[in-house]
Amino acid sequence: MTTNQLLQKLAKTAPILEASFGLEREGLRVKRDGQLTQSQHPRNLGSRNFHPYIQTDFSEQQLEFITPATTSSKEALRILGAITDVSQRSLEPDEQIWPLSMPPKLEEKDIQIAQLDDEFELNYRHYLAQKYGKKLQAISGIHYNFGLGADLLQQIFEQSQETDFSQFKNQLYLKLARNFLRYRWLFTYLYGAAPLAEAGFLTSDISQPVRSFRNSQLGYVNESDLHFPYTSLEAYITSIENYVQQERLIAEKECYAPVRFRGQKKNRDYLSQGVTYLEFRSFDLNPFEALGINQETLDSVHLLLLALLWLDDSEETVTEDLTQAQQINNQVALSHPLSPLPEQAQAQPLITALDQLIQHFQLDSYYQDLVQQIKRALQDPRETLAGKLLPHIDNQSLQAFGQKQAQVYHDYAWQAPYALKGYEGMELSTQMLLFDVIQKGLSFEILDEEDQFLKLWHKDHIEYVKNGNMTSKDDYVMPLAMANKTVTKKILAAAGFRVPQGAEFSQLGPALAYFSRIKDQAIVVKPKSTNFGLGISIFQEAASYEAYQKALELAFSEDSSVLVEEFIPGTEYRFFILDGKCEAVLLRLAANVQGDGQKTIRELVEQKNANPLRGSDHRSPLEKIQLGPIEQLMLQQQGYQAEDVLEKGVTVYLRGNSNISTGGDSVDVTEDMHPSYKELAAQMAQAMKVWACGVDLIIPDSSLAASKEEPHSTCIELNFNPSMYMHTYCAQGPGQALTPKILAKLFPELEE
Amino acid sequence: MTTNQLLQKLAKTAPILEASFGLEREGLRVKRDGQLTQSQHPRNLGSRNFHPYIQTDFSEQQLEFITPATTSSKEALRILGAITDVSQRSLEPDEQIWPLSMPPKLEEKDIQIAQLDDEFELNYRHYLAQKYGKKLQAISGIHYNFGLGADLLQQIFEQSQETDFSQFKNQLYLKLARNFLRYRWLFTYLYGAAPLAEAGFLTSDISQPVRSFRNSQLGYVNESDLHFPYTSLEAYITSIENYVQQERLIAEKECYAPVRFRGQKKNRDYLSQGVTYLEFRSFDLNPFEALGINQETLDSVHLLLLALLWLDDSEETVTEDLTQAQQINNQVALSHPLSPLPEQAQAQPLITALDQLIQHFQLDSYYQDLVQQIKRALQDPRETLAGKLLPHIDNQSLQAFGQKQAQVYHDYAWQAPYALKGYEGMELSTQMLLFDVIQKGLSFEILDEEDQFLKLWHKDHIEYVKNGNMTSKDDYVMPLAMANKTVTKKILAAAGFRVPQGAEFSQLGPALAYFSRIKDQAIVVKPKSTNFGLGISIFQEAASYEAYQKALELAFSEDSSVLVEEFIPGTEYRFFILDGKCEAVLLRLAANVQGDGQKTIRELVEQKNANPLRGSDHRSPLEKIQLGPIEQLMLQQQGYQAEDVLEKGVTVYLRGNSNISTGGDSVDVTEDMHPSYKELAAQMAQAMKVWACGVDLIIPDSSLAASKEEPHSTCIELNFNPSMYMHTYCAQGPGQALTPKILAKLFPELEE
Repeated sequence: MTTNQLLQKLAKTAPILEASFGLEREGLRVKRDGQLTQSQHPRNLGSRNFHPYIQTDFSEQQLEFITPATTSSKEALRILGAITDVSQRSLEPDEQIWPLSMPPKLEEKDIQIAQLDDEFELNYRHYLAQKYGKKLQAISGIHYNFGLGADLLQQIFEQSQETDFSQFKNQLYLKLARNFLRYRWLFTYLYGAAPLAEAGFLTSDISQPVRSFRNSQLGYVNESDLHFPYTSLEAYITSIENYVQQERLIAEKECYAPVRFRGQKKNRDYLSQGVTYLEFRSFDLNPFEALGINQETLDSVHLLLLALLWLDDSEETVTEDLTQAQQINNQVALSHPLSPLPEQAQAQPLITALDQLIQHFQLDSYYQDLVQQIKRALQDPRETLAGKLLPHIDNQSLQAFGQKQAQVYHDYAWQAPYALKGYEGMELSTQMLLFDVIQKGLSFEILDEEDQFLKLWHKDHIEYVKNGNMTSKDDYVMPLAMANKTVTKKILAAAGFRVPQGAEFSQLGPALAYFSRIKDQAIVVKPKSTNFGLGISIFQEAASYEAYQKALELAFSEDSSVLVEEFIPGTEYRFFILDGKCEAVLLRLAANVQGDGQKTIRELVEQKNANPLRGSDHRSPLEKIQLGPIEQLMLQQQGYQAEDVLEKGVTVYLRGNSNISTGGDSVDVTEDMHPSYKELAAQMAQAMKVWACGVDLIIPDSSLAASKEEPHSTCIELNFNPSMYMHTYCAQGPGQALTPKILAKLFPELEE
Repeated sequence: MTTNQLLQKLAKTAPILEASFGLEREGLRVKRDGQLTQSQHPRNLGSRNFHPYIQTDFSEQQLEFITPATTSSKEALRILGAITDVSQRSLEPDEQIWPLSMPPKLEEKDIQIAQLDDEFELNYRHYLAQKYGKKLQAISGIHYNFGLGADLLQQIFEQSQETDFSQFKNQLYLKLARNFLRYRWLFTYLYGAAPLAEAGFLTSDISQPVRSFRNSQLGYVNESDLHFPYTSLEAYITSIENYVQQERLIAEKECYAPVRFRGQKKNRDYLSQGVTYLEFRSFDLNPFEALGINQETLDSVHLLLLALLWLDDSEETVTEDLTQAQQINNQVALSHPLSPLPEQAQAQPLITALDQLIQHFQLDSYYQDLVQQIKRALQDPRETLAGKLLPHIDNQSLQAFGQKQAQVYHDYAWQAPYALKGYEGMELSTQMLLFDVIQKGLSFEILDEEDQFLKLWHKDHIEYVKNGNMTSKDDYVMPLAMANKTVTKKILAAAGFRVPQGAEFSQLGPALAYFSRIKDQAIVVKPKSTNFGLGISIFQEAASYEAYQKALELAFSEDSSVLVEEFIPGTEYRFFILDGKCEAVLLRLAANVQGDGQKTIRELVEQKNANPLRGSDHRSPLEKIQLGPIEQLMLQQQGYQAEDVLEKGVTVYLRGNSNISTGGDSVDVTEDMHPSYKELAAQMAQAMKVWACGVDLIIPDSSLAASKEEPHSTCIELNFNPSMYMHTYCAQGPGQALTPKILAKLFPELEE
């Protein structure tokens, strides 16, 4: 049976769209003026010896972004977005990524061969420079890796009479590769986006814009007398092996066919182990997109590939077909972007296949729209990428357009430096950690996005991380101890640290009876286990019995256990302790504005809220200050209204609590804090044997040196899974990057 | 100022009752017939080289129970209860603990000197046997250790003009010791409970019952010409040191004064380091109490000690006072239990002090009632312990009474062998673990009772345990992975284990769209994170769209994420894995009864519920089977009613689920399960790198050998903090003790 017959036999509900995707995108690093940068590959992008996502291609300046295999095109694009985001923000601030396949104006000498440690790779590049010239190597593009889904393959196989699954699969991929080559001109027509070479790139200039210089015979191709037969996999493999043996090719990978078989290290292994996926290498960078390609193109190509599978393949005429197809493609590539397709380029069979595919598997309107878009583009070349790019050509150059687009994508990457593009739904600390993961070249998988559950690995070393710092480095029971304020206090007190005196109650009666013990002192009444400041009452002077009772009732409404503790006067600081060392100290101030003698309080709030770090719903490191009833009341109690002009130098607070979530300021005081308190806080974490820990100390006078014996401070709480982002992006102070320290401790081998 | 003046100056709200308590109780091991047992100290009670709670006193048969210092008498009694419970259940089933201070009928040769490793202790006992005879050493009693609270001491000290707190404290304890000796006769009168020696104990028999043979000069006392002066601490210490130097005493501890200073290893250290508490040694065992003493006596003694502190002390007449007091005490001790107090025994000053104390500190009715009880006993000797014991004397012997009481306390200890007396409010697994902790001689502190949070230690080695098996042996993140079914499945699948195929949904729409993928197969729809079987729908045959939608809605009502998985037919088993090894396998059966052809279903349920392992509210290893609407409906569906006589051999199920909490049976199949499944489950826990883990496998045919490649089973869930008690006390099967294995892994040094 033909593949078409097999596919027709599949049920409508068969998982026809099931597939694996992987993207590789190249891009040159340029300065703001469009000149190729002469700087080295950024050191902060980890080691190219193993980096799974960010490599350099031919030249030191040519970044290569590689996504892992994903099961959806959306996920592939998301990861490519994150890799691009991380890379852009790892470059020097004045460096950008050139958005076009064809390089900017450059001279041969500007191109530095990538400084790799691997000797073979280095020699290979010198050989290529010699053979093809360095300039051609500066052309960039996107490789679209595509495999059919396991269930889908299985279901197709089951319809066949075949017995050898691996061979069946190889045949399927061979057929797909052949049909792709037959219709390559269509992809060039639709997605070609390399209309010119900047002046000086070619020895003889092309006089008018074309569709895709890169996809033509003038692009980066093998010598024209090299032919790779697609009559069978065996023939294909043997021909390459022969070329290598004849030293026409230095290695199998020098075969630059527009589609390559993938999944094994050596070509011959495809015969025994099977092809796993195909690599389609012909996609030019779409300069209208920050990532060089967009979702619609990915999915349109997916549909087209399925349609190529649906289309019957004439095995007898393969060699002739492909020779002719190559000629057509070359013609289409070198035609003016608005020229019509030549007559030999017959799209109709493929369009029919697309329609049949959509009908048979009842694909939804999204896919129907994609096909409509392809049909429109076939009718009207202005709808093709090259057609859209044409108006931006100025004086046979895209230099200015390229610079403009590069700047837009640069600014986009930097607009929210605390976030990771595509992962904004996750917690900020996890976004920051993922940024570092990608930057340093750890492999990652998000096991549960909502649960912030990550799997990270390097070679055989796996670590799981939840919520940024819940890891294997802490044991199971000590975070549970920290979650219990009474247990925490008992352990700290037993270790000789000062904690608030107090008692725990599970019933109102005994708690009320305790009044006689505390009636002359300042106290705090709080629920035992809430972490958000709810239900807490503070009596800085001795409480009345009635007030005490109300405070207890409030606390019991939040928790079945309530603590009554001595009130400790002083300023509260958060110490972030990692692996026995204090890495950051934070002071939190209640939402406030400072007067300038000219603006009203409302205007001052607006001014402060304009800080890009301020947002809402914990999507930003700081929250916008509100001017709601609570804030208005707070102002009123201080004799102000929102419309009052605030005196110069005067600070008014708009909230009674210092929570960041209600507009408070985070102040990084790591450098200013007396080291003795950092040491003391670190000792507490050590006594608890915890790895990641937030220590809350009340310090009346931080100019006094502290020690365990003379603490001059009291620990009021330990926090498991302490927030990290609030130490990093602060309202004041330099901020401390903590997520890189987490990774360095989890994977010390990366630092070596 | 006198102590009385200082106490009078204290505020009413001063923490007068703040104190530390510690109890030591001796008891002879006897056979059911009252004969001293000749067995060795039980091996399962750990090592006497370090056991903090259970030691042997003079003889191998004389258990000594030692509580740690507690801050309430209630807690001291609770721990004594637990130690007693553990000890009784660690003896041979036919051994009991003799409930009286005076030993049962015995001969000198029956008494084996304790077989201790420590050479000094062994020699010391041989010396005592030589000097005092072994029989006297068989007398048992209770030592009541008492210290004043730190805050209380501080407040009294602050009223004084003194500058040296340690010396002030020593003076206070010296005064209390002196006043105790002055009024010792009162304690003998109230709590004396050693009215006779069994025939053969004395060379010359006493003809009539007395109050306390043990507290008289005939008891176990130092030679009568040894005098320990209480004029000053210095004089007291020097006299003992002199006696030791003269070899009248072999060591300082051979001083058997009824009250001893405590807190330092050597007497002389009290002068520099201070007395920490006093040891009152004069209490006879109360045979009406399983523990030899009760709460009211503990608190009455506490009040009396405070009253002795309140009473002024005449320093000038100490020596005469104490000489006279000793005579009075001897007279009271050797008087008939119903005889009135002699005239020199004036209780009035102490009674007045008690009243004043209660009034000044406004102690509540509980304490007032205790004083009333003391007053009544002073009026009427029948209210004293000796008075109450008198009717039980039969033919100048308490042998029969002692045997009867010993049996009662023995049966009480064994009545709920899964529980630990005094700790029944905690989870069963934690009770079992605490049992083992006490048995093996680990020190423990309950850091949070409601939270099941324990601190365990041996020497410098501390471990924290929550809920029985949440420990430092597991890391932080893997239990969080187990709490997330999707993450668990991904990790297990990545490690090559078979898990159910399926998908996770956070919205109804996509979940409904998934119908096309599952419409022909058996499926389970379940909320992602609930653990209690709520919201789960099982379709053993393909579901209709409507039923599928309903199932989704039900699951979404329990959780924001829902899993749709293939249904795996077979029997579900729970494998308990600890440290990479399968330690137990459990099969759970839905609530059921088996017919005998005679009883009705209702009668069969009652019969089954009579099993002492069945209780309610998770206080017992099994729950009673209900006959409510759900069970009645279930019966009806099978064509039965509760009043039907069930055919012989027929089993009817009264519930659709196999939860133990709804009356299900736990069946221990550890021994019967094919070892390959145990190995497979253990491999899963190892792949997850978890220490304590419950693996739920569905096995269609457990006679087939399993392997990772051919599992013949599917893992449907991993459980962190897996239940332990259900494996131990089962409806069928031998049961597997798991908590001892937890301890052995946490403290391997105990096994050495």
